[in-house]
Amino acid sequence: MNGKVYLVGAGPGDPELLTLKALRLLRTADVVLHDDLVPQEILKLASPRAEVQNVGKRAGSKTVSQEDINFLMVAHAAAGLNVVRLKSGDPLIFGRAGEEIEALRRSNIAYEIVSGVTSALGAAAAAGIPLTHRQISSTLILAAGHRAPGKNKNRDEDDWSKFASTESTLIVYMPGNYAELAAKLKDAGFAADTPCAIISKATTPEQRIHPTTVADLPLAPRLAAPTLLVIGEVVRLAERNSVSKPATISALEPALVGATSPESYSHEIFTQEELPA
Amino acid sequence: MNGKVYLVGAGPGDPELLTLKALRLLRTADVVLHDDLVPQEILKLASPRAEVQNVGKRAGSKTVSQEDINFLMVAHAAAGLNVVRLKSGDPLIFGRAGEEIEALRRSNIAYEIVSGVTSALGAAAAAGIPLTHRQISSTLILAAGHRAPGKNKNRDEDDWSKFASTESTLIVYMPGNYAELAAKLKDAGFAADTPCAIISKATTPEQRIHPTTVADLPLAPRLAAPTLLVIGEVVRLAERNSVSKPATISALEPALVGATSPESYSHEIFTQEELPA
Repeated sequence: MNGKVYLVGAGPGDPELLTLKALRLLRTADVVLHDDLVPQEILKLASPRAEVQNVGKRAGSKTVSQEDINFLMVAHAAAGLNVVRLKSGDPLIFGRAGEEIEALRRSNIAYEIVSGVTSALGAAAAAGIPLTHRQISSTLILAAGHRAPGKNKNRDEDDWSKFASTESTLIVYMPGNYAELAAKLKDAGFAADTPCAIISKATTPEQRIHPTTVADLPLAPRLAAPTLLVIGEVVRLAERNSVSKPATISALEPALVGATSPESYSHEIFTQEELPA
Repeated sequence: MNGKVYLVGAGPGDPELLTLKALRLLRTADVVLHDDLVPQEILKLASPRAEVQNVGKRAGSKTVSQEDINFLMVAHAAAGLNVVRLKSGDPLIFGRAGEEIEALRRSNIAYEIVSGVTSALGAAAAAGIPLTHRQISSTLILAAGHRAPGKNKNRDEDDWSKFASTESTLIVYMPGNYAELAAKLKDAGFAADTPCAIISKATTPEQRIHPTTVADLPLAPRLAAPTLLVIGEVVRLAERNSVSKPATISALEPALVGATSPESYSHEIFTQEELPA
């Protein structure tokens, strides 16, 4: 009898942001195939008898292709093993789950998708940024900065002008080169003073938050992957001492790149006058 | 000494999609203030000594205003109690967390945001819809259908024409009146045959998935709240027997409104030829 494949979200980094279901499946899996960005603290939760394999893009000296990952999932399940395919964040957002699902369907392998906390939500929670707000933002847009090879050549997909609304919050996964991204945002019509926050290794002890603006984004330091960029007026509502004064912070001053965790925030009184008009 | 307020996401419905942190906080909270849509199975996980109060919009005979919720959080914390403010999905998406955070900051109450699986991800997982795909969709847009009163009057916020791209997936929370929504989508430039899926009570035993198109949306049955509407070409990649043949399904035939759960899916072989061109 065939085993089953579970496409499981590992959440943004903090092992406590795993779902109960993800923990149960990790503890009972025969095989765990994980992305490179899943922290060791989460991998340690797998059953000691499980075969745990890094199939991420930066996995050691060799690269495991998408075809190889698909083959491994199908082969292990066909051998009667239960497989957890563990992806950082949620499996359905920028995780190539669509391609893996197609491979499993083609091979008639039973599978289940187990949602996780997507990295953007963990990052926003850590920085204290409400992503929607009745008075400020009614829409959240999740986009990928660095595009994977093999993408469809469609003239529409790189047109971000439709996202340059003061009523939306834009989050860019894998933002890539900041100078190129800033140019793309300016070309799309984003105002130069639109507030941004770069959030690195969100919800982990190494979390860093760097406040900036579209204009100053090219000067931002390169923070450790994974990083996310949050763009929009809601960034002004972030914790005051971490993000809300981008104009007074030198983007090149490392001491001012905030090393904040939810526990270390000081909650200053936030007055109505500080809300964007 | 003041207590602390935790703004906690309860996930889309399935208690196993709670995070480990949410479970820990529920078990140790003195007070739980929850939205109406949080299932009883999740509320039962709270400590037996906790005061559990429904502050949702449909709470019994009276309505608890946002001001009352803010007051309750602050008053309990000021009395030294730890408060879990439990919201369905993730607290930062369409959950008024911004307003609650402002109230807590104003009163100098310590707080922490604990991310959850947002309902859109749970719904997409249940329906087998990858939300992004290298060849099909590079952007995910989360928008609210039914807008809360008190919104800012901004001419930009109801302009959805910017979202009518074949390269995006749009998910509407609280879709409201389907006829009005269909008209809004058509006005925005969405093609009449754009595939849609209405997903009701995602990840719960009462989950229902109704496949349709923008043109047929006004004919869709009213399914039980909470519902979400997924719009875009990726809907064609959903489980074949639940969503992928909208044209052949009568929207008014209740027997064809799929009652599916992840466990009951039959995974038919999915061939490359069925992918949208």
